[in-house]
Amino acid sequence: MKIATLGPEGTFSQEAVIKYNNKAIILLMDTIRNVFESVLNEKADFGIVPIENSIAGTVGQTQDCLFEYGLKIKAEEIIPISHNLVCTKKIKDIKDIKLIYLHQQTYEQCELFIKKNIPDAEIILTSSNGKSAEIVSKLKIKTKRKGDENVVAAIIPKTAATIYKLNILRKNVQDNKFNTTRFFIVGREENKQSGHDRTGIAIYPRIDRPGLLYDILSGFAKMKINLTKIESRPSKGRLGEYIFYIDFEGHKLERNIAEILKKLEETAVVKVLGSYPRKY
Amino acid sequence: MKIATLGPEGTFSQEAVIKYNNKAIILLMDTIRNVFESVLNEKADFGIVPIENSIAGTVGQTQDCLFEYGLKIKAEEIIPISHNLVCTKKIKDIKDIKLIYLHQQTYEQCELFIKKNIPDAEIILTSSNGKSAEIVSKLKIKTKRKGDENVVAAIIPKTAATIYKLNILRKNVQDNKFNTTRFFIVGREENKQSGHDRTGIAIYPRIDRPGLLYDILSGFAKMKINLTKIESRPSKGRLGEYIFYIDFEGHKLERNIAEILKKLEETAVVKVLGSYPRKY
Repeated sequence: MKIATLGPEGTFSQEAVIKYNNKAIILLMDTIRNVFESVLNEKADFGIVPIENSIAGTVGQTQDCLFEYGLKIKAEEIIPISHNLVCTKKIKDIKDIKLIYLHQQTYEQCELFIKKNIPDAEIILTSSNGKSAEIVSKLKIKTKRKGDENVVAAIIPKTAATIYKLNILRKNVQDNKFNTTRFFIVGREENKQSGHDRTGIAIYPRIDRPGLLYDILSGFAKMKINLTKIESRPSKGRLGEYIFYIDFEGHKLERNIAEILKKLEETAVVKVLGSYPRKY
Repeated sequence: MKIATLGPEGTFSQEAVIKYNNKAIILLMDTIRNVFESVLNEKADFGIVPIENSIAGTVGQTQDCLFEYGLKIKAEEIIPISHNLVCTKKIKDIKDIKLIYLHQQTYEQCELFIKKNIPDAEIILTSSNGKSAEIVSKLKIKTKRKGDENVVAAIIPKTAATIYKLNILRKNVQDNKFNTTRFFIVGREENKQSGHDRTGIAIYPRIDRPGLLYDILSGFAKMKINLTKIESRPSKGRLGEYIFYIDFEGHKLERNIAEILKKLEETAVVKVLGSYPRKY
């Protein structure tokens, strides 16, 4: 089985693939969009992408790609996120660090730690945790040869530190001890019912008016179906025009849910992003 | 009047300050969190921060800081976003670009353009549009002296290109012609009613159950108050525990709205982030 995910080596996405299927051949892509394309073009059987972190929130690009590409959510994986401050060399005082490479979401997850402990360091945002590790490991080789005035660090997962042989200065530097990321496994086919499912849908209302969202939710409330997430995202048209993303418990083929979806379609464009066995 | 915003020189945030008050002294900060801190510590009278882009969605850090710092939203500004591909030198074919520096949100706004026109370039994400301009302008000086094998580009606002004297290769490279960012002006004091207001609140429910959000929204629906945005963001506790952010038309001192808020407080912690004159 071939699974596409976000590279380079050492991302939490790679960890999610291994947790989902440790025998899969992993195809490392450079963007979330390319993960979706490789599944759509049948270069990969499935893709694994981050959808939501318990601190930084929804990954907007994944949400948009789910809407655009029409792939189906096949499963979810929850990965505990633990970050490590690593350096090209061993240093006594982390206050000496001048430059920190880290991913945008990692920055949001470790911002208070950095502010408190390394307030003067310059921050450089990278496109992934693996990339942060790669950049700093390349500097490591350079510094060895050319002298080492600058103390350069990265904040990365343990697997990345191991792969790129970087010194761990501090473990668990994320601001919140409880920090997890939810990943979606996406594929080209729909799932059958498992009896313990969650469904994600996107709703694009045809007209806007007071009470619209309330009416959308009334079907779910009447059937006592638990919503597990709701989000309005700009429709990429006029500011203030939104697509609503809703997660709820149940499978789209369950009779009461199929009824609600049919009712919703009278006033909105409804897209089912997938029904899949839920993990929490 | 002193207004803190995201630096360095050349960000859209700086443009928003100038639109709001072109005589203000601008204090450029390196993070959104530091903008909030400078207002809280009275180093600045107001802060101006991006809250939402019509393509990339909500700026999570601003949302979180509004909740944490207790500053009040004083006003909103809408800034049209137009991006430009700039380079350290004039080149014939943009396919020759090897490296592009750009801000995370700018990347999300120009991803299709890059994929189509410069698919092989390496992407480096920066912490702001001004930073992208600054980095590339420094490389410009370097390349002049040391030779110029690498074609390095950035995608930045026009003001940044002007300030840093970079060559514009392509104008309006954002994927969607309609692209705006909404900014909040935040301060330490609450606004009076203007008669044409919007209010932002955060709701932290004390218990989770089916129909909870529906019940939260029922007060607004009954009073025919138009919701203009809704979002659930992780509460930074257990995955699946959310804070709901809701924007609606009206001022918190209007009688019917004050009633709804009082009712909400029976089952949830409710935080008013501010009532302010609405621009759309």
